[in-house]
Amino acid sequence: MPHQISDRMQECIDRCQSCQETCLESVPHCLELGGKHAERDHISMLIACAEICDTSARFMLLGSAYHARTCEVCAEVCDACAKDCERLGDDDTMKHCAEACRRCAESCRQMAKTAA
Amino acid sequence: MPHQISDRMQECIDRCQSCQETCLESVPHCLELGGKHAERDHISMLIACAEICDTSARFMLLGSAYHARTCEVCAEVCDACAKDCERLGDDDTMKHCAEACRRCAESCRQMAKTAA
Amino acid sequence: MPHQISDRMQECIDRCQSCQETCLESVPHCLELGGKHAERDHISMLIACAEICDTSARFMLLGSAYHARTCEVCAEVCDACAKDCERLGDDDTMKHCAEACRRCAESCRQMAKTAA
Amino acid sequence: MPHQISDRMQECIDRCQSCQETCLESVPHCLELGGKHAERDHISMLIACAEICDTSARFMLLGSAYHARTCEVCAEVCDACAKDCERLGDDDTMKHCAEACRRCAESCRQMAKTAA
Repeated sequence: MPHQISDRMQECIDRCQSCQETCLESVPHCLELGGKHAERDHISMLIACAEICDTSARFMLLGSAYHARTCEVCAEVCDACAKDCERLGDDDTMKHCAEACRRCAESCRQMAKTAA
Repeated sequence: MPHQISDRMQECIDRCQSCQETCLESVPHCLELGGKHAERDHISMLIACAEICDTSARFMLLGSAYHARTCEVCAEVCDACAKDCERLGDDDTMKHCAEACRRCAESCRQMAKTAA
Repeated sequence: MPHQISDRMQECIDRCQSCQETCLESVPHCLELGGKHAERDHISMLIACAEICDTSARFMLLGSAYHARTCEVCAEVCDACAKDCERLGDDDTMKHCAEACRRCAESCRQMAKTAA
Repeated sequence: MPHQISDRMQECIDRCQSCQETCLESVPHCLELGGKHAERDHISMLIACAEICDTSARFMLLGSAYHARTCEVCAEVCDACAKDCERLGDDDTMKHCAEACRRCAESCRQMAKTAA
């Protein structure tokens, strides 16, 4: 048997992957919309959020003891990204992205606490 | 609307993510088993396969025209990784990994052809 | 000894890392400038180019036989990214980015040929 | 001008890239050596360390305010990886890897403090 990926961890991995996906596909969408959606800090936030989600999923899959630390940071970045998307939340893509970020943040916070 | 992710492309993204996941969680599993499972070329193959799957998914999500080229390479690496897992296929994890690689290779080959 | 990283491969790894770096730091720069610099296809190109550079470097470092294939795609993407930066090349950052892409493409093409 | 990458931040990015490189090329090396070098926790540590180094460098290059948080985790993982390599430090590759990890951890700790 591998390193026992619990149901809770599997859910967290799934949400990290969904969040990475939603953030990355929001990048061309927001650039197309232009205006506030294409501002530097929003686009950088989307790319950075996709990045830490991928890294947290990888730490869990590899069985690294440090997944609790990457999940802690992931929860913070996802919450900030959700807030940023809600601020611009006048279209479905941003609402959808904010929801994916919130779900990922919730799971990551649980993983960070469980391991501490 | 974003850059029109077709059903076929969405399926390919999903399979790339599943394959990345299965390959990465196979790394600690195979290292634990030891012997042929822990040989250099097998472990390197699993890590490299996870990597190109993630990159191909990212190219599709970003709407890059070059996703056809990354998908083409991804199909080759996934086929090679599947063959390598089948060679060691005396446990469920390796069988499961080979299947995920084959499904991803199939989708990636379609994406590579469609765009050509 | 590890898997014999030749001088030529080491140079290619270095250029992939430089290109990833220059492309990624150009993203916030171009978004700040706005206009043509912040268009969807240019920003997506910069992110995708950084991605395949990182993946090619990883394949070489891991000793994967498929580095020739990722380097081949990397050379194509880098050439396209260089052309895109040259088109906007009215500032030093874009000139600098185009140069890093050209140097990386040159090394990657050599690696693709050597292995074939 | 881009987002003002200070000399100290540039040094940290360079060390993250060097550490990612050294950790990844140590993977096939350690698998070849076998024995304690090929144990699950050591190999997983090398891959995870390469991963968080890459992510921290990307956060700095993108100008994300959260680079301080990824650098903080990066410093912890690098210190743990250095300790793990020193434990096996009977060959030059492990000594070299431990040094790259220590240098990266030192820079990342500075970046984490400066931003706090």
